[in-house]
Amino acid sequence: MGEKILLAHGSGSRLSHDLISKVLAPSIMNPVLARMDDSAVLNMSGKLAFTTDSYVVNPIFFPGGHIGRLAVCGTVNDLSMSGARPLYISLALIIEEGLDIDDLRQVMASVKDTAVEAGVQIVTGDTKVVDHGKADRLFINTSGIGLIEYGTDISGSNARPGDKIILSGGIGEHGMAVMSQREGLHLSLPVTSDCAPLNHLVSVMLSVSKNIHSLRDPTRGGLASTLNEFAKQSDVGITIEEDKIPVCDGVRGACELLGLDPLYIANEGKLVATVTEVDSGKVLSAMKKNKYARQAVVIGEVTTEHRGRVVMKTSIGSSRIVDMPVGEILPRIC
Amino acid sequence: MGEKILLAHGSGSRLSHDLISKVLAPSIMNPVLARMDDSAVLNMSGKLAFTTDSYVVNPIFFPGGHIGRLAVCGTVNDLSMSGARPLYISLALIIEEGLDIDDLRQVMASVKDTAVEAGVQIVTGDTKVVDHGKADRLFINTSGIGLIEYGTDISGSNARPGDKIILSGGIGEHGMAVMSQREGLHLSLPVTSDCAPLNHLVSVMLSVSKNIHSLRDPTRGGLASTLNEFAKQSDVGITIEEDKIPVCDGVRGACELLGLDPLYIANEGKLVATVTEVDSGKVLSAMKKNKYARQAVVIGEVTTEHRGRVVMKTSIGSSRIVDMPVGEILPRIC
Repeated sequence: MGEKILLAHGSGSRLSHDLISKVLAPSIMNPVLARMDDSAVLNMSGKLAFTTDSYVVNPIFFPGGHIGRLAVCGTVNDLSMSGARPLYISLALIIEEGLDIDDLRQVMASVKDTAVEAGVQIVTGDTKVVDHGKADRLFINTSGIGLIEYGTDISGSNARPGDKIILSGGIGEHGMAVMSQREGLHLSLPVTSDCAPLNHLVSVMLSVSKNIHSLRDPTRGGLASTLNEFAKQSDVGITIEEDKIPVCDGVRGACELLGLDPLYIANEGKLVATVTEVDSGKVLSAMKKNKYARQAVVIGEVTTEHRGRVVMKTSIGSSRIVDMPVGEILPRIC
Repeated sequence: MGEKILLAHGSGSRLSHDLISKVLAPSIMNPVLARMDDSAVLNMSGKLAFTTDSYVVNPIFFPGGHIGRLAVCGTVNDLSMSGARPLYISLALIIEEGLDIDDLRQVMASVKDTAVEAGVQIVTGDTKVVDHGKADRLFINTSGIGLIEYGTDISGSNARPGDKIILSGGIGEHGMAVMSQREGLHLSLPVTSDCAPLNHLVSVMLSVSKNIHSLRDPTRGGLASTLNEFAKQSDVGITIEEDKIPVCDGVRGACELLGLDPLYIANEGKLVATVTEVDSGKVLSAMKKNKYARQAVVIGEVTTEHRGRVVMKTSIGSSRIVDMPVGEILPRIC
């Protein structure tokens, strides 16, 4: 039997200090964190991006990743989508009493690897422990700070009629991977989460074009939610073509089995961009050279028609409105 | 029966958008938040402080405050303790399915009031909902960014022999208030949490002295933990006098009843500072003018003896070592 987390690990006592110094800090240590003060002290100047996300994914380990990698990628990606270069991340754990300390070690090892891949430092943190039955193994919050260097103004409000809509790859993989693990589905074609840090991809995109208007990672609510947000925030119409949207066979099969629409399933390693038509070709070429965007494709365009709405031309030639999801699609996938 | 939170409120669906736009955002809206992108965009230059904390206090409403006020004060105070002026706060909610939406409204109203009192803006946020029984009503994470303006280098590592140790007021009030509420204790002298934003107090202190070496708010683990952290981080000894430490009658009575030591009970509106002897008088005078530090007092000093240890001269004239707490003192008080 491995060691388990006790309530006392969260009390500010010597046990808390031991947990931090022996299990949590070693894998992510750096000079800023080593000060061990309540705040990290950072030298920065310019236009900063600041974001936060809590991760409550169930189960915490799933095909293709786990809550640690997800928590770093999610915040790195949110910063990237504002055109920022992610630099500093905070890491706050809410641990359920009884969690295996070895599970925590495994999560922290991957937090470290993902931070190294993305080139971000974890500079401040917090650990809380709640009684058994008052949380679900492990929740993680990451907040992050990035530097907006390119002088670009990227926002969901900036999509312009005529922009091409670029999607970086196949949709629905993260949501279906978590769902299949949680429900014990034995899919004939297993699905693996696409969970990945996209900052290097965004950096390449911004280096070839100053005409990227909107960027977002379609997480909860999937591609359908992100496109609807763009349409509403920018007061434009969006038209997409069903045939253009990459969906891998595993996701397609699982969605058919369960009666789900991949447009509404979460991604954790994909992005959607709106780019001027003139620049769309070079942005697409640059994207395809990045390992997380080999399948990047133009899936539609921004229009002056049907403002605030997303319309999809289907495979059989008809058109349908792609609405915001109304109720629960897949709970706790991030 | 009031409305309750459903799982679907956390799914990125139209219900999520409604919860955010109708319940969460209105009370804290500002131009940065109004962009509704994944990251806030901020213009800042200089030495920044960055911190994070999750709040899992049980119960979420307690005498003198609740989880919303606590979450803003805690992060404002962590920033202040690094000598920073707190500016921007993130707010991430993990909500248990079934929570009364009216409770959430009440929490948000006080988040707003506390942010206004502290002069900070909430610029980015996140909302997750987990199934009933997988969290405990409401957990909140706040992260924060502040600007270190005074060119001071304040750290738990900077305490110097000869420094006076100043405590801003009576100890143990927050921990005992939460504990008495949770356990249904009927104390003859009720105890109210001291939960308060201390940034204006710190600002006054820094304006009268450049010789404040260490600042910390004694939260989890209480005054004993903070002083032990200073002693270890700065490799100095610390001597305090029991008679000098303010403890209100309610806390003293409750601690005697329960066999607890107020030195180990959490505070959420107090600070400890180490200041050169020369400047200690004017710092103390300045503090006493602030409503959260009327009882500020010198409780001891930093020494070259017994490095790494805290020694207390007791009321009866003996000395005892005040160690780090070992196990759980009071769980989930913040």
